[in-house]
Amino acid sequence: MRDDLRADLLEVGRLLVSMAEAVRTAMVHATQALLTADREICEAVIARDNEVDDLRRQVDQQVYDTLARQAPVATDLRLVVTGIQIAADLERMGDLAEHVAKTALRRYPAPAVPPELREVITSMGSVADRMAGKVGLVLTTQNALLGAELESDDDAMDELQRQLFNILLDRHWPHGAEAAIDGALLGRFYERYADHAVNAGQQVVYLVTGEPTEPPGLA
Amino acid sequence: MRDDLRADLLEVGRLLVSMAEAVRTAMVHATQALLTADREICEAVIARDNEVDDLRRQVDQQVYDTLARQAPVATDLRLVVTGIQIAADLERMGDLAEHVAKTALRRYPAPAVPPELREVITSMGSVADRMAGKVGLVLTTQNALLGAELESDDDAMDELQRQLFNILLDRHWPHGAEAAIDGALLGRFYERYADHAVNAGQQVVYLVTGEPTEPPGLA
Repeated sequence: MRDDLRADLLEVGRLLVSMAEAVRTAMVHATQALLTADREICEAVIARDNEVDDLRRQVDQQVYDTLARQAPVATDLRLVVTGIQIAADLERMGDLAEHVAKTALRRYPAPAVPPELREVITSMGSVADRMAGKVGLVLTTQNALLGAELESDDDAMDELQRQLFNILLDRHWPHGAEAAIDGALLGRFYERYADHAVNAGQQVVYLVTGEPTEPPGLA
Repeated sequence: MRDDLRADLLEVGRLLVSMAEAVRTAMVHATQALLTADREICEAVIARDNEVDDLRRQVDQQVYDTLARQAPVATDLRLVVTGIQIAADLERMGDLAEHVAKTALRRYPAPAVPPELREVITSMGSVADRMAGKVGLVLTTQNALLGAELESDDDAMDELQRQLFNILLDRHWPHGAEAAIDGALLGRFYERYADHAVNAGQQVVYLVTGEPTEPPGLA
């Protein structure tokens, strides 16, 4: 690979790593705000989503500039264009963290998560954190094994979502339809966050190995 | 624009129009299946989502081939790469139609939509149908005005989602938490379908006018 192309790609990668860190932090803070009904943290998560959107625009611009300047071919070409797709997944992860924060804010000062759901939501937050961390690592190390780990993490998230729904649908659920809807939507936000993490990870793996992988079941 | 590049772009456009038609049909059928609890239609919608996924792979491949063969620059370059992003939105619309069908199937032979929700779900299906039709038209005509229309259609969808939630959260809601969760998730599937339609439309408008548009509030 030519040095000038490598330099451009490093810049795309650097921006993507910043995005991955930002959306990881966003979901950690959103989960914390959700569990503690902390208004300030909610508002900070929502305000900072602009930074993620701005990073995505920078990635897109850098990709177009690179394509125009370097006219890369074959693997290099795919690598450059894949930057746009990874950025789209990461931006969406940021949006989902923002949705969690907005759900918490909508119920403030009441907690959006009743005691029955605290444990499963806490676990979902942990899995989300682990997955976003791995996306950052895959981007840095291009280690295909981490991509596979993301898929088993995603299975764990799906299992947590099933647990969550079982609690919501228990006929002794005491909190009514509104809290059940909030719980179901929160579960979906975490599950989609995980799906996008898998997607982002797979894009990098595809790039590294040259083997197309099936898109995950984006449920 | 050179003739060979134009031919490649026409092929990308042709594939995208096929995708738009397929995901429009998918949501029409899914809504019909949902409202009539029709198992065969549900299964057909789910089975045919593979065709949409396959079309997306063809778009991606065609884009990479075009970039490699033609090394387009400036507006042409953006046009070619934008094909990948539009295909991603359309594929997701297909997934969301599949989710509607799966929701109907999960309750079969019972209807997943209680009488209180039939009207609003029917309206959401109509708006979704209109929007998917416009995405196909924007792709064909590159008419920027249709892109703006998609945004007001999206506002109509958001308003329908608010109506849906008001019904679910009415304290006289007689169907319990499970039906409320189904209703809320269905509402979200239609609303996300609309968001992706706006996104796809905006990508084309960006292309036609050269003016960047803000990504829609992908809620």
